[in-house]
Order: sequence, then C-alpha cells, then structure tokens
Amino acid sequence: MFTKGTYTFEPNFAPEKYVFVSNNDEGLKRFVFDLSGMGNLEIDGQGSQFIFNGFLCPFLIERSKKITVKNLSIDFKRTFHSEGTIIAAYKDSLDIAFSDAYPYNVQNNKLMFTGDQVIGKDNGGEPKRVNYPFWHLLEFDAVKREPVQTAFDYLNVQNMVVKDLGPGRVRIHFPRLKGSVGNTLIFNATDRMVPGFTVSDSEDISVRNVTIFHAGGVGILAQRSNNILIDSVKVIAAPGRMVSTAADATHFVNCGGKITLQHSTFESMMDDATNIHGVYVKIMQIISPNEVVVKLMHYQQFGFDFLAPNSKIEITEAESLITYGETTVVKAERLNKEYTRITMKNPLSSKVKVGDVIASSEQYPDVLMKNCSVQKNRARGILLGSRGKIRIDGNYFHTHCAAINLEGDGRYWFEQSGVRDLTITNNTFDNCNYGFMLGLGVIMVSSGIEEQKKAESRYNRNILIERNTFKIFNPCILSGYSVDNLTFRNNKIENTTAYEFLDWFKNMNLKNFMLTNSSNLKIEQ
Amino acid sequence: MFTKGTYTFEPNFAPEKYVFVSNNDEGLKRFVFDLSGMGNLEIDGQGSQFIFNGFLCPFLIERSKKITVKNLSIDFKRTFHSEGTIIAAYKDSLDIAFSDAYPYNVQNNKLMFTGDQVIGKDNGGEPKRVNYPFWHLLEFDAVKREPVQTAFDYLNVQNMVVKDLGPGRVRIHFPRLKGSVGNTLIFNATDRMVPGFTVSDSEDISVRNVTIFHAGGVGILAQRSNNILIDSVKVIAAPGRMVSTAADATHFVNCGGKITLQHSTFESMMDDATNIHGVYVKIMQIISPNEVVVKLMHYQQFGFDFLAPNSKIEITEAESLITYGETTVVKAERLNKEYTRITMKNPLSSKVKVGDVIASSEQYPDVLMKNCSVQKNRARGILLGSRGKIRIDGNYFHTHCAAINLEGDGRYWFEQSGVRDLTITNNTFDNCNYGFMLGLGVIMVSSGIEEQKKAESRYNRNILIERNTFKIFNPCILSGYSVDNLTFRNNKIENTTAYEFLDWFKNMNLKNFMLTNSSNLKIEQ
Repeated sequence: MFTKGTYTFEPNFAPEKYVFVSNNDEGLKRFVFDLSGMGNLEIDGQGSQFIFNGFLCPFLIERSKKITVKNLSIDFKRTFHSEGTIIAAYKDSLDIAFSDAYPYNVQNNKLMFTGDQVIGKDNGGEPKRVNYPFWHLLEFDAVKREPVQTAFDYLNVQNMVVKDLGPGRVRIHFPRLKGSVGNTLIFNATDRMVPGFTVSDSEDISVRNVTIFHAGGVGILAQRSNNILIDSVKVIAAPGRMVSTAADATHFVNCGGKITLQHSTFESMMDDATNIHGVYVKIMQIISPNEVVVKLMHYQQFGFDFLAPNSKIEITEAESLITYGETTVVKAERLNKEYTRITMKNPLSSKVKVGDVIASSEQYPDVLMKNCSVQKNRARGILLGSRGKIRIDGNYFHTHCAAINLEGDGRYWFEQSGVRDLTITNNTFDNCNYGFMLGLGVIMVSSGIEEQKKAESRYNRNILIERNTFKIFNPCILSGYSVDNLTFRNNKIENTTAYEFLDWFKNMNLKNFMLTNSSNLKIEQ
Repeated sequence: MFTKGTYTFEPNFAPEKYVFVSNNDEGLKRFVFDLSGMGNLEIDGQGSQFIFNGFLCPFLIERSKKITVKNLSIDFKRTFHSEGTIIAAYKDSLDIAFSDAYPYNVQNNKLMFTGDQVIGKDNGGEPKRVNYPFWHLLEFDAVKREPVQTAFDYLNVQNMVVKDLGPGRVRIHFPRLKGSVGNTLIFNATDRMVPGFTVSDSEDISVRNVTIFHAGGVGILAQRSNNILIDSVKVIAAPGRMVSTAADATHFVNCGGKITLQHSTFESMMDDATNIHGVYVKIMQIISPNEVVVKLMHYQQFGFDFLAPNSKIEITEAESLITYGETTVVKAERLNKEYTRITMKNPLSSKVKVGDVIASSEQYPDVLMKNCSVQKNRARGILLGSRGKIRIDGNYFHTHCAAINLEGDGRYWFEQSGVRDLTITNNTFDNCNYGFMLGLGVIMVSSGIEEQKKAESRYNRNILIERNTFKIFNPCILSGYSVDNLTFRNNKIENTTAYEFLDWFKNMNLKNFMLTNSSNLKIEQ
C-alpha cells in the first residue's frame, strides 16, 4: 500500500531481466515492480502517481498467481514517442515545432530524439545520451484530437532528411509528406521496449482503477496467462499530449480462462484498444512423420515459447487457414528464440507441407468486454481472435479504422484467430472507420486467406450482431469473407455527416453489407 | 578433429546465450562452438576453413579449463565492415564503388549495408533484412595496404547523406571528408557483436596455428581468465580485402597467470594488435565508511563483474591515478549490468570521494610477446597495462600510431593500467606512428592523468628498452609523463625517408625523447 503521492522511479539501480514479450520487443530490461513468482499480492497506490524515467518497465508479473494492482497512475518523464506541431507545410516537407517535453538533436541531417540520461561515452568520446528512436509518423487533428481523416502511416521514416531550424524547430522532408498547419505530428517509437504491464504464464491477475498515461509499447500485455481482469482502467493521453500509449492499450496472446475488460476507457493509443489472439509457428522442416522444426516468424514473437510436452496443437494450411490436423506435443526442443523442434503423438496428415502453420488448440480465453469506451486512437478498436465465448456488450466505439476486426493469418503476422462464438450487443458505433486506412467496414473480417481459398475456408463462425447503434457517414457496416453463420438483426442505423464522404470513397461501390464467400448469413436490416 | 575441408556455419539452429564481453558489445548471441564448462578439450581443424554466415560467433569458452583450438581458419561470408573503392573526389564528397561482397541499399539518402538473410518483416510489412550497421570511416592506401598517412577517423558517420549512383556506386557527403581516388574506404562496424573467440572465467586456453581472416569485434577476447597462449596465430586480411578484424586482434581484460603471444602475425585490423588491462569502476555513492555503490562506466564494460567476496581491490584517485587504498571485498551485490554495491573489509580512506575508481589489485598477468609481427592496422600496436612481468622481445612493428602504448585512465575509458616491470628488447620498430593520429612517439605513455596531477603521479614504473632497432622518419621515439625508472640503452636508431615529414609536424618541436614529469630516467642514446 502506497501513501498517496507522486513517486518517481529512476532506472539506475533497478534489477534487469531478459524478457521475450509477444507483440513487443524482447530485451534486457529493467523493472520496478518485478512480481515474478509471487502470489496473493495486492499493490494499492491509493491514488498515487507513478512516474518512470527512461527505459524502465513498470510491472513484470511472471509465473504469478492472484495479483491485483489498483488505484494508481502510470506515466513517463519522457515519452517514447514525440509530438510536434506542424507550423508550415511545403511540397514533401513540413516545419515542426517541438516543446521542451521532446528533446532532440539534428546531426548530419538526421533527427534523433533524446532524454536527459547519459549512458557513458561512445567510442568517439562523445556522450552517449539515451536515444528514443522513431520510425513512424502520423498526423493528429488538433481539434478532434484523433488521427486526421486522410492521414496515413508514414513508416520507416527514421532516416528522413531533417534540417535544424534553430531552437525547437526542424524542417522534415519525406516523399509525399503532407500535413496541415496547426495539427500535431506524432513521431512514434521504433521499438516496443517498455510495456506498462508484462504478464506472462500467470493467472488471476487484476488491474483495477489504474490510469495509464503512457507506455513505450503495449499498456497491458498478457501472454500464456489465464483469467485477466481489466476493470475501470483508463488509457488516456496526459494533459498537454495528444497520444497515450505508443502501441495497443491491451493485448492478449495465447491466454486462457476468462479475459474481462469492463468500465474502462481506451483513448489516444497509437494502436488498437485490444488484440486477443494466438500465435502460429511455421513448419520449416519435416524430419519424420511426427517430427518437425517450426519457427516463430515475426521478430516480435521471437522467444514466444508455447510448445511443451502435452501441448494440444492444430496444424493449419497457411493459405486457407483450414485446420487439417490436431495432435499433442510429446517433446519440444527449443533450439533458440526462433526455432523449436517438436515431436508429436500422431504422424502428420498426408496434406502437411513446409510452410503450413501450427498453433495451440487449447489456449483460448472466453472474453467479456462491457461498458468500455474506445476512441481517438490510431488503427482499430478491438481485434478478436479467440475460439472461446466472446461477448462485446454495451461499449462505445469511435475509431479511426474498423471498430471490431477479425484478423489472423499464417503468412504475414502469424496471429492465430478465427472466432467460434461471438456476440456483439448494445454497442454504439459512432462513425467508426472514418478514414479507411486499414480496410472497409465498422465490423471487418480481414483474415489473411488467399483469394483462391476464400470460397472453401470458413475461418470465422457463429457471429451475432444485435441491438447495436451504427452511426455512419458512409454505408459500409460489415465487410469480409469466409464467414459461416452470421446474424445481423435489430440494429439501429443512423446516417450522419460527421465526416466527409471523400472523393476516393465514391468509386468503391460501398454498401452496408460487403460479405463474400460466406454461408448462413442472416441479415435483417 | 575435423576432416580437412571447408565448413560453412549458418545461424538458424545455433544455440543462444546472453553474454557480456568486455570491449565488445553485449547481447543475446548465437555460438557455433559453445565450450562452456568443458575441460581437456582439443579442437583440431587439420587445416580446415570455417566460414560463418551472419551474426554467429565462432567460439565461446566460458568457465572452461585446458582448451586448445588449432589448425583452422575463421572467416565470415559477409564481413561486418564494408570496403569501397574511392572512384571520384569532390569537396566534402566521395564517390565509392562497392563490389558484390558488400551488399547495401540507399533509402532516404541513407546508406545501409545488408546481408542476404531475411529476419521476418517489419511492422510496415517490408522484409527485415539483416543490417550491418557502420559508424566509422577510414581510408587505406591501395598500394601500401595500410591507413594512409594523413587519414583520420571519421566517427559517427552513420547518418551521412548518401546518393545512390546506380549499381555498386554511391556518393557520400560528410563535412571535411577527403580521400584519394584509387584508395579503399573502410566503413567499419558500429557494434562489436561477433568476436572470434570469447574467453571468460577460464584457464589454460590455447589458440594455435589459427588464421582469423575476420571477426565482427575482437579476434580473441579473454576476460577474467588465466594462462592464455596465442601461438602461430595469423590475423590477416583475406585475399581481396584490405581489412582483417573489425576491432583489435586480441584483447585481455582482468586476466591473470601468463599471457603468451608468440610466432604470430597481426595485420590489417581496425584496431590494436593487443590491449592488456584491467577495468576501473567508479564510486557513485558512499553509503557508509565501508560500503559503496560502484558503476561500470563504458557501455562496452557493462556486465563485467569482477567484484566478489574476497576480491582484493585498490582504490585510486581518478584524476591522478594514484592508488591510496587497498582492501578486500566482503560482499558484492550486483544491482544490474551497470551498478554493484560492495561492502569492504576496511573503512575507506579519508581521501575517498565520489568519482574515484576501484579496480582489482590481483588480476594481472605476466605477459610474453615474442617473435610476432604487427603491421598494416589502424591505431596502435600493443597496449600494455598489467602490473605483472611483461616481456616484449624480438617482434616487428610497423604501426599506424604508436607501436607500444601505456594507457589507462579513470575518467574516459576506465581501463586500469600502470606497468611495474616492462622490458622491451630486440624488436624492430619500422617507421611506427607515421601519422600521429593518436599522439606522438613510437613508444608512448598516454595515461589519462590530469595536467595538474602529472608531477606527483608515477603511474608507469620500471621500464627497460634495450637492443631494439628504431627506424624513424621523424625524431619522436618516446613520449609521455608520470613515469618512474625508465632505462633506454643500446638501441639502434636509423633515420629513413619512408614517409613524408608533414608540414604540421614541423611546428611540434619533435625530439627523440619527450618525457615530462618523470623521475629516474636513464637514457643513453
């Protein structure tokens, strides 16, 4: 229990651990609250503010049971992203003004953000200052305080040519760079090194009445953990800032039991409010009928070990996401953070081929998201990829891209998905997906299934969308493919003029329901 | 024992370990030959060639005893540095041609060297190719195959503006960049991630008849180890290349017992032939009269743990390098890779202050370097910083900077040095220090002692220089300060015109012997 107050945490004397955190970056990291191996512990901030300085992770909850963190706020002295105001716009160039909150320097035409911490000298004898690398730009509307409608991600911009214009001002050049004077340009962090909460291999974890103003990665990340409660949590931008977390507010990977998100606010993140999914590994070598070498494919999944003796697994065709085999792991030999050699109980199907994927067939949570609000963030509202019972009820969404997205693929992100029991009720969808940056639809199915496989694949199944309100300025409510048994009924659709119906929308033949290659659709408008 | 042949090692299935390697970069690294904890092992290549692909470290010898590696060569499919030919020179710009051996791309005016390995996709969906970062440029003479006389290090050049001139050619811009058409420009690696041999906490280690064509770091690095034999080793550039290792040929930190370098050739490295020293930690907090928090200061020393119960230590004033206390560690609590809290047997001297430094007072080796040849490399020949008996006998030196350097400081590199018994006999010094890039003198004492402390400090003591041949084109044989008891006698000095006596040498008042603030000098010319 903390006496209510403001606590500042410095990294100098903090303990270190090398951790692999899915959908974030691995590394030797320092933690303030390392609760590994603990149980029956409650941390009560009694309304305290926790301020972290530098590359210092707030909470590590690893192989822990019955942990509650409550009544506190988390912020960072120097955010991992930087925010600048657009003060002039030219062809392919913008002039940006930075406040003192975002120290930087320009060397050899390159912009580098720094903090105030010096970590020794480089081999040239210059002070080596902590660097806050960026790789991504996105423009936020100064008034609406959300990504501008026509904005899109400028990625891999870290090497753009930058001219120093004197104190607090730079001119940045990048092909086709555009922005409006007065808006805020976000320079987002390259790496997701500092999630707010890293929860691994734990169970019965609660985060209650916690405000996360910022994290250098996902706000709350749980992996291979059961029963997570997010209650009355606010992920919001601090006063004076446009952006809250540098990545998703929450993210759940290969979790089980029940995930509950309730009475919570998810605003201004640089990525989704939540993403719940499993991980696919790719078959790289078939050694014998029941032995394969598999590989974790995305670098932010490296070290994500979920294959162990007795793990139940499914074997899935990468192109179609059709599962054609299920078996049990007998032996798992981790070669390194990328490769594992596994022996299975049963011989592989004759269909199996190098390039197909394997995932857990048992690490799925039930999900309840109730009375939450999602808005002002980049990208989607929520990504749902569990085979368990999912209930999305009574929430408010006003999202940049789709409010609800069913994704998953075996060729790109390698995130296992495919819902089996999804109910979406009593939600308000307020002009969601206003920019079409990542596809069409308020509710979108965009699983990575090859075009020629969509007709036979039914990756997402049993979806009920009922008693919701859809406020729309463009017709597209539902888009996707390879869905079986979807019912849309008793929803209210209200037309608005909240956003511009952009010219390029006009040639897209937009309709309310744009589902293809699907069966058992029951749509009552 | 390997059947003679060419063996190529790929990183995919190699095991990983997080290792801290002094004077190299820490990291989660993959090793081919992890000999940790082994003893009485001999690896005999019988003349084999070992080729390593990517960020893959050849040998890890950790907590091992009686290990011999012999009769093999080490090279890398893609070197960690890159070499280009200067094909045109303009004001502040050079045009460079690269062969296929150095793949690269230019994006947003930035040059990035790559290999052929893809490690997944970045978050923008682009293939993430293995990157070979560079930060340093140095020009080598195409005919002499050594650093050009007037060349100096361009450091922190990684962000220089680069224009793609089409296949195999780029134009690079950097303030005051100069070079001669036909010469080779080395783009040296930013990080020292891949030493050839990493030897830690081991004893009786021999490397015999091994050729190291390249390493992405030090060729052979030994730390906290006793009795190392380097016999008939060649560190040389592979055919078609100008440079061998991206850092020193060999390097020894807090070693003990005896270090022997004999019948070996050290050529074309991007740093010294050897550097033998200890490590200073800085006192950051004085907690009680016998308790302090100390910090490893250089980022390439992080994780270098040498303080443990019963460690004998010395406490030294950082400015003067005068040791004013010796004691024993009772307790050492490692806080993280930078900070350790130690309890000492005796209370601290009243002189002690935050900022002073602590080093081991027992981890010193005797050193014999005999019948070796050092030439064509950047920087110095050998850096000697042991309190043990050091014999440098019968070697040939033709070095870019000083042939023999006594360094060490408590404010910059934090390398403990200070010889007590150094004999330099029967060596040929062939036009050494031809460019004055890192100070004056064939034999140089350049310890980091503050100007006002030089008169009282005697950091290096008991040096005999006898029966050597000095071929010189400029007068300066010996430079330095704060030396006690140096004898120079029976040496042959031959004047040459091998290098230009540069204009800027003329105002430097160069003399044969430029020792100040020293005592007991017996110089017989």
